[in-house]
Amino acid sequence: MAETSKLGALQSYAQECVERHNGQSRSSSVLRGALILLIAVNILAFVVGTVPDMAERYRTSLDILLHVSMVVFAWEYAVRIWTAPLHPGGLYTDPVKGRLRYLVSPIMLADLVVLIPYFVGFGAGFDLRFVRVIRLWWLLGITYYLPAVGTLGRVLKRERRTLFAVMVIMLTMLFIASSLVYLLEHERQPERFASIPHAMWWGMATLTTVGYGDVVPESPLGRVLGVIIMLLGVGTFALPAGILASAFSEERKRRDFMLTWSLVARVPLFESLKAREIADIAILLRPMQLTTHEVVFHKDDEADSMFFIVSGELEVELPHEPCRLGRGAHFGELGLIYRRPRTATVIALSHAELLELDAKDLHKLFERRPKLRSSIMAEAERRLASDRTAAEQV
Amino acid sequence: MAETSKLGALQSYAQECVERHNGQSRSSSVLRGALILLIAVNILAFVVGTVPDMAERYRTSLDILLHVSMVVFAWEYAVRIWTAPLHPGGLYTDPVKGRLRYLVSPIMLADLVVLIPYFVGFGAGFDLRFVRVIRLWWLLGITYYLPAVGTLGRVLKRERRTLFAVMVIMLTMLFIASSLVYLLEHERQPERFASIPHAMWWGMATLTTVGYGDVVPESPLGRVLGVIIMLLGVGTFALPAGILASAFSEERKRRDFMLTWSLVARVPLFESLKAREIADIAILLRPMQLTTHEVVFHKDDEADSMFFIVSGELEVELPHEPCRLGRGAHFGELGLIYRRPRTATVIALSHAELLELDAKDLHKLFERRPKLRSSIMAEAERRLASDRTAAEQV
Amino acid sequence: MAETSKLGALQSYAQECVERHNGQSRSSSVLRGALILLIAVNILAFVVGTVPDMAERYRTSLDILLHVSMVVFAWEYAVRIWTAPLHPGGLYTDPVKGRLRYLVSPIMLADLVVLIPYFVGFGAGFDLRFVRVIRLWWLLGITYYLPAVGTLGRVLKRERRTLFAVMVIMLTMLFIASSLVYLLEHERQPERFASIPHAMWWGMATLTTVGYGDVVPESPLGRVLGVIIMLLGVGTFALPAGILASAFSEERKRRDFMLTWSLVARVPLFESLKAREIADIAILLRPMQLTTHEVVFHKDDEADSMFFIVSGELEVELPHEPCRLGRGAHFGELGLIYRRPRTATVIALSHAELLELDAKDLHKLFERRPKLRSSIMAEAERRLASDRTAAEQV
Amino acid sequence: MAETSKLGALQSYAQECVERHNGQSRSSSVLRGALILLIAVNILAFVVGTVPDMAERYRTSLDILLHVSMVVFAWEYAVRIWTAPLHPGGLYTDPVKGRLRYLVSPIMLADLVVLIPYFVGFGAGFDLRFVRVIRLWWLLGITYYLPAVGTLGRVLKRERRTLFAVMVIMLTMLFIASSLVYLLEHERQPERFASIPHAMWWGMATLTTVGYGDVVPESPLGRVLGVIIMLLGVGTFALPAGILASAFSEERKRRDFMLTWSLVARVPLFESLKAREIADIAILLRPMQLTTHEVVFHKDDEADSMFFIVSGELEVELPHEPCRLGRGAHFGELGLIYRRPRTATVIALSHAELLELDAKDLHKLFERRPKLRSSIMAEAERRLASDRTAAEQV
Repeated sequence: MAETSKLGALQSYAQECVERHNGQSRSSSVLRGALILLIAVNILAFVVGTVPDMAERYRTSLDILLHVSMVVFAWEYAVRIWTAPLHPGGLYTDPVKGRLRYLVSPIMLADLVVLIPYFVGFGAGFDLRFVRVIRLWWLLGITYYLPAVGTLGRVLKRERRTLFAVMVIMLTMLFIASSLVYLLEHERQPERFASIPHAMWWGMATLTTVGYGDVVPESPLGRVLGVIIMLLGVGTFALPAGILASAFSEERKRRDFMLTWSLVARVPLFESLKAREIADIAILLRPMQLTTHEVVFHKDDEADSMFFIVSGELEVELPHEPCRLGRGAHFGELGLIYRRPRTATVIALSHAELLELDAKDLHKLFERRPKLRSSIMAEAERRLASDRTAAEQV
Repeated sequence: MAETSKLGALQSYAQECVERHNGQSRSSSVLRGALILLIAVNILAFVVGTVPDMAERYRTSLDILLHVSMVVFAWEYAVRIWTAPLHPGGLYTDPVKGRLRYLVSPIMLADLVVLIPYFVGFGAGFDLRFVRVIRLWWLLGITYYLPAVGTLGRVLKRERRTLFAVMVIMLTMLFIASSLVYLLEHERQPERFASIPHAMWWGMATLTTVGYGDVVPESPLGRVLGVIIMLLGVGTFALPAGILASAFSEERKRRDFMLTWSLVARVPLFESLKAREIADIAILLRPMQLTTHEVVFHKDDEADSMFFIVSGELEVELPHEPCRLGRGAHFGELGLIYRRPRTATVIALSHAELLELDAKDLHKLFERRPKLRSSIMAEAERRLASDRTAAEQV
Repeated sequence: MAETSKLGALQSYAQECVERHNGQSRSSSVLRGALILLIAVNILAFVVGTVPDMAERYRTSLDILLHVSMVVFAWEYAVRIWTAPLHPGGLYTDPVKGRLRYLVSPIMLADLVVLIPYFVGFGAGFDLRFVRVIRLWWLLGITYYLPAVGTLGRVLKRERRTLFAVMVIMLTMLFIASSLVYLLEHERQPERFASIPHAMWWGMATLTTVGYGDVVPESPLGRVLGVIIMLLGVGTFALPAGILASAFSEERKRRDFMLTWSLVARVPLFESLKAREIADIAILLRPMQLTTHEVVFHKDDEADSMFFIVSGELEVELPHEPCRLGRGAHFGELGLIYRRPRTATVIALSHAELLELDAKDLHKLFERRPKLRSSIMAEAERRLASDRTAAEQV
Repeated sequence: MAETSKLGALQSYAQECVERHNGQSRSSSVLRGALILLIAVNILAFVVGTVPDMAERYRTSLDILLHVSMVVFAWEYAVRIWTAPLHPGGLYTDPVKGRLRYLVSPIMLADLVVLIPYFVGFGAGFDLRFVRVIRLWWLLGITYYLPAVGTLGRVLKRERRTLFAVMVIMLTMLFIASSLVYLLEHERQPERFASIPHAMWWGMATLTTVGYGDVVPESPLGRVLGVIIMLLGVGTFALPAGILASAFSEERKRRDFMLTWSLVARVPLFESLKAREIADIAILLRPMQLTTHEVVFHKDDEADSMFFIVSGELEVELPHEPCRLGRGAHFGELGLIYRRPRTATVIALSHAELLELDAKDLHKLFERRPKLRSSIMAEAERRLASDRTAAEQV
C-alpha cells in the first residue's frame, strides 16, 4: 500500500515535470525548464550545423548532443505515457484506454514523428540528416506552451471570420493584380512574367509592400497598374495586423481583470467584500508586479495613482528614517488627495504585487464605497499630521 | 392549376439555386455551391492555362472545361431571367417589365459580357483567347456574394469621406514628391527620371514603402529628399489601413449584437423577457459557435466566463459519470462565483450555439435582473452541494 | 447710394467667388470651382510638359494655357484685394489698413511668388521654365481648402507633442543605426558607406521598411545589426500612422456629433425638446446622406437600425401600392421591435438626409424619452395592423 | 554661516543647471539648454567628421570643439558630484555615502565611459578617433531626458509581456521561415543560402516587409514559400506597432487628465469645489496651450466647444471694439447653447492656457453642476442681450 502510494507520488511528480503546462512545485519547474532548454539547444545545434565551417569543427559535439537528446526525449516520452492518467483536464483517466487515447493525441504523435526516424534509422545505419532537420518540429512545441501564444491562439479563434474575410479579399486582389500585370507585361518580359503564377511573385511582393525589385513592370501601362496596386495593397494588407492588434489589447484587458479579481480579495481592506462587490472594484484597479529594488515612484514625481500592497514588502525613503510597508498597506494617496508631487521615493524590498488605482478612478471608488473613503482619508490625515510634526522637529 | 403551381415551385426552387444569396434549403445550396466551384475551377484553368507547359499538356481538358462551363452558365443565365420575378427584394415582380429591368441590372450585364463573345465568337470561328481572359470577371462575382465582402463594402461606404480625404492628401504628396525628385535628379539620371510621370514610379514605390530599388535618387540632395519622403510616407500611407481596421472592428461589434439579440430570446431563462429587456442583456453576452467535439474549457483552466446553451448538446466530464447539458442549460458559473478553476472539462457533443458571459459582466447582469441572480445562485449552490456529496462518497 | 450698394453687392459676390472657403450661392460656387479646375489643369500641364514628346507636340497649347492662367490669376489677385474688407473672419475690415494687412498674409504672399516672376520675366524676355515649375505651389493651395485637410491639420495640432516625441525617438534610432552600420561596413564597402550621412540612406530605407536594396551591409556583423534594425524599425516607424489613425477617428466622431445635433432639432418628433435634451439624443443617432435612387435597405435584409427623415422624400416599395414618406417621418422600427427582416425595400426619391438609430441604442432612447417610446410604438402597431389587413385582402 | 548658505544656494542653483530634469528658474534652464545644445553639436561634429572632405576642411574646428566640450563636460561631471545630495528624489542625501552611491549610478558611469578615454588618452598621446565615436553615447543621454521618451518607456514597461509574447512568435516565424527556405534554396543558390543564419537575412527582410531584394528564392517551391511568408509577415510584424500605438494614446489620455486636474482648480468658477468634484469635471475638460497671437477660432467657424481661461489674456474681435478676457473668464458658450456659428474671432494676446469643453460634454457638466449651469446661462443671456443692443445701435 505504502509502496503504491509512493509510486503514485512519484508518478504525480513526474507528471508535473513532463507536462510543461503550469505545475506549482519549484523542483519540477526546474526540470521542466531543463527540458525546454534542451529543445532550444537542439534547435540552435541544427541552425549552427548548417554553417559548413561550424558543422566541421563541432561535428563530434553536435553528434553527441543529438544522441543524448534523443535518449532523454525517448525517456520523457515513456514517462508521459506512464503519467497520462494524471494529465490535467482529466482526459485520459482510464489506466489502459486513457493511455491509448493519449498515444494518438496530436502532441504525442508529433513527438513520435521525431523519435521514430532516429531509432529506426540508427538501427538500420540510416543517414542522420533527416533526423536533424526534423527537430525543428520541436520549436513549435516550445511556442505551444508559452502563455503568450495561447493568447494569440484565442485572439485568432475569436477573429477567425473577419480574418478569413480579409484573406479572401487579399487573395482576390492578388489574383486580379497578377492577371492584369501578366496581360500587360508578358510580351515585353516573357521570362519574368512567363505566366500568371510567375506574375504572382511580383503581385505578392507589391501588395505586401515587401517590394524586392527583382521583377518589376517596365511598360508605361504596367507601371500605372503597379502604382494602383501599391496604393490598394498598402490600404488592405495592413488590415489583419490592425484587427489583431486591437483584439490583442481587448484580450489583455480581459486577462488583467481576472488577475486583479484574484488579487483584490487578498487585500485586507477589501477582504470583507462579497464577490459582486469585488467585481465593482476590480474594474478600477490594475495589477502590477515588482522585482526586488524596483522603484515604484521617485520623490517629486508627479502623483497620478495610489497603490495597495497584495504581497511583498516596500520601503518609503522618508528623510529621517525609512518606513516599511507590508501586505495590506496602501500608499501614494497623499499626492492624489492633496494634489502635490510625491513626498518620498518608494522602493520594493522583495518581489511584490501591487494594485494600482488611477486618480481618475479613485473618486469613483470613493463614491461606490464610502466606508473605504473614510478609512483612507483618516489614514491620509494621520500621515499628513505626522509629516508636519516631523517637519516641525527639524 | 396544379400544373402551374408545380411549375411555380420549380421556378421558386430554381431561383434559390441560381441566386447565390442566402437560400435555406440544403439541395439548393449544394447546387449553388457547385456553380461557385465551377467559377473557381474556371479561374484556376485560366491561371494554369498561361503556363506554357501546362497549357500544352492539358489543352483538351481546358477546352472541354471552357465549352461545358459556357453552356452551363448560359443555361443559368436563362434560368435567372425566368425566375427574376421571385428575386429577393421584390425589385422585378412584374413578369414582363420586371424581367426587362433585370436584364439591364449590373450583375446581368456583367454576365452578358462573358457569354456574348463566346457564343458570337464560336459561331464566327473566333479566337477563344479573349473569352478565356474574360472569365476573370467572374472572380469579382464570387467575392460579391461573400458576407465578408459585404462588411468591407459597408465599412468603405461609411468611411468614404475620411478615406477620400486621406487619398487626396496622399496624391498631393505623390505629386509634390515626384516633381521635386524630378527637378533634383533629371540632370543626373535622364533615363530614369525622364519626366514627372516617370518620377512618380519612384514616388509611389517610396511613399507606400514598397521600395523596389530599380529607380533611386543618386545626388546628395535627391537622397535628402528621399529620406524626408520615406518618413512622411510611412506616417501617411498607413492611415487608410488604420482607419479601416478600427471601422471593421466597430462593424463586427454591431453584427455581434444583432446575432446575440436573436439568440437571447431562445434561452428559456430569458424567454419571458420583453424586447427592451433583452436588449439590456444582449449587450453583455457574446455569441459562440462550437463544432462537434470542440472543447469549451478544460478541467483546471482559469474560470473567466459562464455559458448559456442556445442549441446543441454538451458533456461535462465529471469524475464519476459524465453529465449532459442541453438547450437552455447554463454552466461554468461555479468558477466565477466561488473564484476557483474549472472543476471539469466540457465538450460539445454536436454542433452547438452558446452565449458567453464575462466575469466582468456577470455582476452587471445580476444587478439588472435580481430574479436571474437568485435562480443562477440557487442552481450553483445545488451543484456545489452535489459536488461535495460526490466527494464524500469517494 | 444705389450705385454704391450695387457695387457693394458685386464686391460681396466677387468675394464669395474668389474665397474658396464655403460660400452659399450656386453661381459663385461654380466660379470658384472653375478657378480650382484651372489650377488643376495648370498642374497637369506642368507634369505633362516634362514628358519630352508631349512638350514638343503641345507646346503652343501649353504656352497659351500658361498666359491665360496667369492673366486670370492676376485678375483674381486684384479682386481679392478689392474684397478683402469682406473676408470671412472679419480680419481685414478696415478699407486701407485691412487691405494692406491682407497683402502680407501668407496666402497672398504665396500667390505673389507665382505671379511676379511671370510678369517681371515676361517683360524682361525671361525664360518661362521657372514660372512653369512654380505653379506647383498652387497645388498646396487646392489642398489647403479641402475640408479633409483641415481635419488632418487639427489632428496633427492636437497630437503634435506625441508625434514630436515619436519623431525624436525615430531620429535617434536613425542616428545610432547609421553610425553603427558605418563603423561595421565602412572598411568593406568604402564607397557605399563612405560616411555617416551616406549610411543614413541605408538607415532610413531600412527603418521605414522601404528597403531599396541598392545599399546593404555585407559583413556578418553588419547583417546581424541590420536584422535588429529591421525589427526595431517595424515596431517604431509605424507608430505615427497608428496614433494619427486613432486621432482621426476620434475627430470624426466629434464632427458627426456636431452634424447630428444640428439635424435632430429639424425632426418634428424632437422639435419640442430643449437643447440639453437634444444632446442626450444626438449621442445615439448617426447622420446619413442619400443621393436620389439610393436604396436604404432591401426587402428581407436583416433589420439592425431604424431611421428618421430630416429632409427629402423616400418610397417604401410595399407589395400593393408604394408609400411615400417625407420630412419628419420615421421607418424601419418594425424590424427592430418585432425582431424580423425588412418587409419592404426603401429607396430615396430625392437627395435625402436621415438619422440612423442602432438596435442597441433604440432601447436606451426609449428609456430616456418614454413619450417618444409610446409615440413610436403606437405607430408601429398601426403599421403592423395595416400590414395584416393588406395580407388578409390578398 | 552666511558664507555657507550662499554656497548652498549656489550648489542648489548649480544642481538645477546640470540636472536636465525639470528645473523652474529661467536662467538655469538656459544653462541646461546650452549643455544639451553642446551635446547635439558634438554629435553633429562626429557625423560630419566622417565625411572625408569635411573632416579635412574643418579639422581644426572639430578638434577645438572636442577639447572644449570635454573640458566643459568634465567640469559638469564635477558639479554633479558636488550637488548630488540635492538630487531630486532624495536618493543621495548623505554628503559622503550619497555621493559615492551617485558615482556608481548608471548615468554617471555612462559619462565616465566618455570622459576617461579622452583624459587618459590625451596624456598618453592616444589616438582621438575612439573618443570621437564614443560621444554617440551622449545621444542616448539627450533622449533620456525628453518627456516623450519617458512616456515610451512607461508604455513599453506596461506592455512588456504582450510585446515579449509577440517577439517570441516573430522569432519562431523567422526561424521556421529561414530553415524552410534554406532547405528549398540551398542547392540552387549555395552562396546566398549558404546556411540557416544566411537565410535569416532574407527571412527578416521579408517578414518585416523591408524586402531589399539582394537575396530572393528562385525555385518555384521557394517562391511559393516566399509568398506565404510575406502574407504571414505583414499580419504579424505590424502587431507591436499597433499595440504600442493604442497603449500610447491610453497613456496620453491619462497624462491629459492629470494636467487638466491641476488646471481646473485654478479657474475661479471651479475654485470652491472639493477634490472629488474636480475629478468629475476634469474628465470632461481638455487642456490647450496657446502661443501669443494664436487664433482660438475664427468668426463664422462652426461652434463645437467652449473655453475656460486658466492663465493669459485673449482678445475677442467684436465689430465695434475688441473685448479682452483674462484668467477665469469663459467664452464660446453662445455658439453651443444657441447652436450658431462663432460671432467673433478670438486671438491670444499672450501665452495662454485654456480648458476646452466639447458640445457633447457641456450638457453632462450642466447636469452634474446645476449651479454652474445657471451661472453660465446667465452670462450667455447677458452677452446675447448686449449683442442685440450693439446690433440695434448700428
